[in-house]
Amino acid sequence: VNPASAQPGAHSDWLTLNVGGRLFTTTRSTLVSKEPESVLAHMFRDKCVWGSQQDKHGAYLLDRSPEYFEPILNYLRHGQLIVNEGVNIRGVQEEARFFGIEQLGEQLEVALKNTQPPDDHSPVS
Amino acid sequence: VNPASAQPGAHSDWLTLNVGGRLFTTTRSTLVSKEPESVLAHMFRDKCVWGSQQDKHGAYLLDRSPEYFEPILNYLRHGQLIVNEGVNIRGVQEEARFFGIEQLGEQLEVALKNTQPPDDHSPVS
Amino acid sequence: VNPASAQPGAHSDWLTLNVGGRLFTTTRSTLVSKEPESVLAHMFRDKCVWGSQQDKHGAYLLDRSPEYFEPILNYLRHGQLIVNEGVNIRGVQEEARFFGIEQLGEQLEVALKNTQPPDDHSPVS
Amino acid sequence: VNPASAQPGAHSDWLTLNVGGRLFTTTRSTLVSKEPESVLAHMFRDKCVWGSQQDKHGAYLLDRSPEYFEPILNYLRHGQLIVNEGVNIRGVQEEARFFGIEQLGEQLEVALKNTQPPDDHSPVS
Amino acid sequence: VNPASAQPGAHSDWLTLNVGGRLFTTTRSTLVSKEPESVLAHMFRDKCVWGSQQDKHGAYLLDRSPEYFEPILNYLRHGQLIVNEGVNIRGVQEEARFFGIEQLGEQLEVALKNTQPPDDHSPVS
Repeated sequence: VNPASAQPGAHSDWLTLNVGGRLFTTTRSTLVSKEPESVLAHMFRDKCVWGSQQDKHGAYLLDRSPEYFEPILNYLRHGQLIVNEGVNIRGVQEEARFFGIEQLGEQLEVALKNTQPPDDHSPVS
Repeated sequence: VNPASAQPGAHSDWLTLNVGGRLFTTTRSTLVSKEPESVLAHMFRDKCVWGSQQDKHGAYLLDRSPEYFEPILNYLRHGQLIVNEGVNIRGVQEEARFFGIEQLGEQLEVALKNTQPPDDHSPVS
Repeated sequence: VNPASAQPGAHSDWLTLNVGGRLFTTTRSTLVSKEPESVLAHMFRDKCVWGSQQDKHGAYLLDRSPEYFEPILNYLRHGQLIVNEGVNIRGVQEEARFFGIEQLGEQLEVALKNTQPPDDHSPVS
Repeated sequence: VNPASAQPGAHSDWLTLNVGGRLFTTTRSTLVSKEPESVLAHMFRDKCVWGSQQDKHGAYLLDRSPEYFEPILNYLRHGQLIVNEGVNIRGVQEEARFFGIEQLGEQLEVALKNTQPPDDHSPVS
Repeated sequence: VNPASAQPGAHSDWLTLNVGGRLFTTTRSTLVSKEPESVLAHMFRDKCVWGSQQDKHGAYLLDRSPEYFEPILNYLRHGQLIVNEGVNIRGVQEEARFFGIEQLGEQLEVALKNTQPPDDHSPVS
């Protein structure tokens, strides 16, 4: 338990992402701190670079899948990769690659192998 | 059946939480009464401490996963831990830890063991 | 087929429920007619009693789980208990108890037994 | 592929349905053309009859389950009955009966038999 | 990783689709570039042709299933066909046919065969 991170002052920079039409509310520090070298962190570290891509309500626009982005965002919040049964790991991989979250790559590889039978070569799992 | 808890006057303090972008409507008494020593109860017991972290519609902002928060909130409403098939117990554990709902810890441990085969060591279930 | 119940005039009293943050649109007659002795029917039979607990858009506030309330509302609409695979029957039981829909109790008991293996004693299914 | 049906002019009559609180956007021709003798087609053929049952945003109110209505609407769009795994066929049957989509009856019977083991007599699948 | 495609300037043309009532935010270049000969690309290449079919918030109206459209849009974003467990492949096929995404046809055929047992002739999987 780390109550401090939920106290006022700890998050000074709330923002909303519009990922493919679904809204995610989070903080700039979540996007920037956990994986500081990721593409996502670079996007949100410098307000000037990214600030122009907002919808009319001020949410930052990302042309990606909201469903597969969700576990990425949770990972940035608490450092755990947690994916529901039935959610395609390959979708999460695509988002991790796009946003340059390299630390998730190996975990996702392992998870993918565990969910596919060894003789399954189908393009869709 | 406890109809009293749904009668007017029983809940004098409705509020809305914005958990990672999804809205949950509940009452302050639900958040505060069931587990009075939790971090969540502390957050909402003292209006002054928490009141400044609201979105523009007045919902209280929490930078957490809405999907895994949902069973936590239901537990606070009626005292039962109920998780749907396919929802990753580990996600609920992360939220219980974050919000300091210690009473759920043991139940979640048991539930996690029941959903995983004994020889499964994958980081993602 | 009972087309009459969808014709204008049959439902004179549309209302929206805000159940834990999700909106359900229905009619007062659906809530009141099917199970007239339930707690839910009592709540909505007398406008004066319940009318004060509304959100700013006029939806009636209920501090309960929307997911598990949904099959209860469908039951009141057409008299059938229908629950999707993967939805925890115990969650529906909690809502049926809370709203005093006693007629559903036995059906839910049977449904719960059918979804659990006989030697499963886990608190979460 | 029938691109014509998506061209401007082909759909002159967009409308939104508020089914139990969820919004579905479609066209009057979809509701009326595929099954012209259904109750649903009758509802929307004559604007005068149905027009009075709208919410404040102009969506037509239907006191039914949105989840089980969805495959009905898709069927009216393209003529195929397609139901996701985990969605209870009996729920779709209730909606097909209510809206008088008789052509779906036999297909749903077959689908229901295929999803239930022969010795399952539970009221909830 | 191709961070360039998420940089400002790369997407100059954000738009929102209202697919059967659910909103998807994407860019015109996503709809037009990946499969330039598709019906969907033709719809959105020429603003004059399609521009008249918008809802009151400016979202482009498509009278189709949002659930089955989602993997089509993701495919246009990153070139991979990714479908969750439990989502009916036949629904995705209907959308691919409607929008004339012919490149997906063979992949979907393979995926469909892999999810159906060889002796299953039911109209609904």
